[in-house]
Amino acid sequence: MPRSSQPIQLPTLKDEALWLHALTHRSYTNEHSDTLEDNEALEFLGDAVLGFLVSELIYKRYGSSVNITEAQMTRLRSKLVDEKQLARLAGELGIGDLMRLGKGAIQNNAQNNPALLSDTLEAIIGAYYLDAGIVKVRQFVTRLFTDIADDLIESSDDQTLPNLIDSKGKFQQWALKEYQQTPDYKLVKEAGEDHEKIFWVEVWVKGKKYGEGQGRRKKEAEKKAAEDALQHVGG
Amino acid sequence: MPRSSQPIQLPTLKDEALWLHALTHRSYTNEHSDTLEDNEALEFLGDAVLGFLVSELIYKRYGSSVNITEAQMTRLRSKLVDEKQLARLAGELGIGDLMRLGKGAIQNNAQNNPALLSDTLEAIIGAYYLDAGIVKVRQFVTRLFTDIADDLIESSDDQTLPNLIDSKGKFQQWALKEYQQTPDYKLVKEAGEDHEKIFWVEVWVKGKKYGEGQGRRKKEAEKKAAEDALQHVGG
Repeated sequence: MPRSSQPIQLPTLKDEALWLHALTHRSYTNEHSDTLEDNEALEFLGDAVLGFLVSELIYKRYGSSVNITEAQMTRLRSKLVDEKQLARLAGELGIGDLMRLGKGAIQNNAQNNPALLSDTLEAIIGAYYLDAGIVKVRQFVTRLFTDIADDLIESSDDQTLPNLIDSKGKFQQWALKEYQQTPDYKLVKEAGEDHEKIFWVEVWVKGKKYGEGQGRRKKEAEKKAAEDALQHVGG
Repeated sequence: MPRSSQPIQLPTLKDEALWLHALTHRSYTNEHSDTLEDNEALEFLGDAVLGFLVSELIYKRYGSSVNITEAQMTRLRSKLVDEKQLARLAGELGIGDLMRLGKGAIQNNAQNNPALLSDTLEAIIGAYYLDAGIVKVRQFVTRLFTDIADDLIESSDDQTLPNLIDSKGKFQQWALKEYQQTPDYKLVKEAGEDHEKIFWVEVWVKGKKYGEGQGRRKKEAEKKAAEDALQHVGG
């Protein structure tokens, strides 16, 4: 999987106590009488911050340029912030060795536990938000997730993310590669009663028609036109 | 349910096209050849913005002052942004009459459909975020949800939100009311092997001990101490 050459580093917080708070698992507070607060509330906050920023990344990066539906955006987001993905990132960031764990938890290899790694990365994101604000956290989250999101979009034929890019997205990729232009969908005809209409759409690139399609919804007709076009260009 | 006397109004967007986009249901685009984009991607974005801001509201308003667990914060958030709640707010804001719907949808009374009302409010929040930024949307979301959240917290004995405030939260409310002070939990003893410890905790207010408790986790011992204290003060 292609990734940025530069390894991503954990942020540095101004507030050292908040940083330690984010790293503190419940098992640690049970063994240290001077530490009362574990990182669970920060994890709640960080999970929400992360959900927002990853959604924003998806919306702004793919929302208009690739023809992605809301359902597909939701699926992509789930894939980006699921426990497995977050645990892997937490591992790369070296969070396992930083977590403050109880001795019993360490004996049980908690520093490699995917759920704990994922939770602690979320708590760090929550703490970093409180410490530095949304602009800084957005930079961190964007660095963490952009390449992974691009990889998931590009490899979306996989069984893991079926139909993430539909035929419109695929034909757009072809048109951008061949002509550096996005396809133009033209509604050429509509017929029928108001809520039982049929739409005819053609798809054009650089003054040439590549495909046509019809459907009960405009989006369906566009999708059909893109499928038609892909057959003509061998996509 | 006590609510602010001043009715909350919908925001005004600088970008008129974006505003119309947020109001546009899929059924409308199917009947209007000049309108290609429905509000579903904006709804995806708005849902994430709303989840973030409501989580932040919960964290900052109750996270440290009321002893609320992560699970309870999550339950409170679900309750605040569920379809029923959002549809009610959308109704109060007059969104039903603003939605751009297809004729068939209007015949099916879509302007009063809770799912559509809820989705459109989310789309408006997404559009307002793009138009005016997070600070403005935070003000709008805070006005919308603060009273509702306070009501849910206060009425958390209800079957609808069991145990939202635990005994620590209740005793703190008592202490704040009686003495304008928060209770002080003191760890007085611990015993046992490292990960099988027992903790003894006392709870004090204004130099007086009100209760004591023990447990396998510090939080459990604190909760027991608060329960003990509540029995003594008749809470």
